[in-house]
Amino acid sequence: MAGTDRTKADLAASLGAGPAIILVEPQLAENVGSVARAMANFALAELRVVRGRAQADGEKARVFAAGAHHVIDAARHFERVEDALADLTLVFATTARERGQAKPVDAPAEAAARMVAEHAAGGRVGIMFGRERTGLENDEISLSQRVVTFPVNPAYASLNLAQAVLLVGYEHFKAATGGAAPFEMPTRARPGTHAELVALFAHLEGELEDGGFFRSPDKRASMVRNIRNMIHRMEPTIQDLRTLHGIVAALVEGRPGPEGRGRTVLKPVKDAGDPV
Amino acid sequence: MAGTDRTKADLAASLGAGPAIILVEPQLAENVGSVARAMANFALAELRVVRGRAQADGEKARVFAAGAHHVIDAARHFERVEDALADLTLVFATTARERGQAKPVDAPAEAAARMVAEHAAGGRVGIMFGRERTGLENDEISLSQRVVTFPVNPAYASLNLAQAVLLVGYEHFKAATGGAAPFEMPTRARPGTHAELVALFAHLEGELEDGGFFRSPDKRASMVRNIRNMIHRMEPTIQDLRTLHGIVAALVEGRPGPEGRGRTVLKPVKDAGDPV
Repeated sequence: MAGTDRTKADLAASLGAGPAIILVEPQLAENVGSVARAMANFALAELRVVRGRAQADGEKARVFAAGAHHVIDAARHFERVEDALADLTLVFATTARERGQAKPVDAPAEAAARMVAEHAAGGRVGIMFGRERTGLENDEISLSQRVVTFPVNPAYASLNLAQAVLLVGYEHFKAATGGAAPFEMPTRARPGTHAELVALFAHLEGELEDGGFFRSPDKRASMVRNIRNMIHRMEPTIQDLRTLHGIVAALVEGRPGPEGRGRTVLKPVKDAGDPV
Repeated sequence: MAGTDRTKADLAASLGAGPAIILVEPQLAENVGSVARAMANFALAELRVVRGRAQADGEKARVFAAGAHHVIDAARHFERVEDALADLTLVFATTARERGQAKPVDAPAEAAARMVAEHAAGGRVGIMFGRERTGLENDEISLSQRVVTFPVNPAYASLNLAQAVLLVGYEHFKAATGGAAPFEMPTRARPGTHAELVALFAHLEGELEDGGFFRSPDKRASMVRNIRNMIHRMEPTIQDLRTLHGIVAALVEGRPGPEGRGRTVLKPVKDAGDPV
């Protein structure tokens, strides 16, 4: 809503605990850094890394985190996937392909709705992402309750690790906050009243009459309706209506010919010898 | 749906022409490359670059495009934003902040729905992204019909260029294809019939009776109901029911004591001298 002023504190409260992001054996430090950045973009704070301390702790990860050092600094490290998941009540595993496991599959938006509901019910959620090249192993997937996969172009399905985290964070943020754009059209002047609109119609239609716009009397009524509807679709404020009155007046002022009311504007030369 | 086999050709047809991605003065070649990759992930093919040939044409962009060279190769280059937009019927401008323009603002999902509708109505859509540091200029924004902005963490709102394109591509792909996950839980054996379920209940409850599980007769009925409901929630297939029968039998086989029906399993030593 135009009047909403959602402060950062409000937002943190409404987000609650987002899902823990669990990276299993990440291979490239730049990906861990980009994951941290994507998490910060969508207010996720909890990074857990299984057998990836070297990738997550170095300078390279920090460079790619681009300021989201707080996520890197707070990361927790584990040797076993089971330990990384121990306190969670709902665990998702991300996979790019069907992996033959009898486990329900969610698109990211469905998974995000489940995450928010689980948190509201007092649970604690995490989502596992596997190795860049090979993903999660089947035994790791079997530790999760549900699978998340991404609707992507099957002809080019190589979503990278940070992009996958970004989409999960984005959908969670939308689900947790309602997904409205963070700002709206700026509050403008108040809308024009019906009487103010009609005054513009009268001004414009009168000048159009004088200017010979309605050459065909039987079409006049429908032409007037069309013009009025165009102006309605503009949803003009009182300021817009003033601007439109000014535009009509300025155009009339410059009108050439015997009924011109001000300075004369030269007609374009239509019979010049030069080709047009 | 489990039986759906959406081929690549079907997908391309259903996507139709996705929005043209218009980059205005991109500053870093790696970003142009990553944009191309994000576009390919979500089946967007049309990249237009305004005053950024050096950034889009070089080797670095290709490296970051990670195989999406077809997008880079097909990119069209323009000197003026107006020319890059000339054939479009609906143009969105992306901005990170409110820019004081009296223009409707969409979140990405709303914008994606409008893009799909515009295409269905015979229109042609594009979305402009500005410079990495400074975004679009106000005059450039004024050439668009609508503004798109991203719901992000206000405390860390620096979404990078390729991530912004990724989110637009993702939402467009969802809107154009219905957004279902690309696969579902694998088709399993057929669900168990009611009679097959009741047979399992009888097997399990009989063995539990023999094993002395129902110590408190007045709680028996509610315990049975709880166990049956747990099994119902599992939605077992006929194969799952066979597995459960086998589990019950195996546990009973190993049951110790006088009523044990097979090999005797040693009870854990509870009175050993070592602390537990």
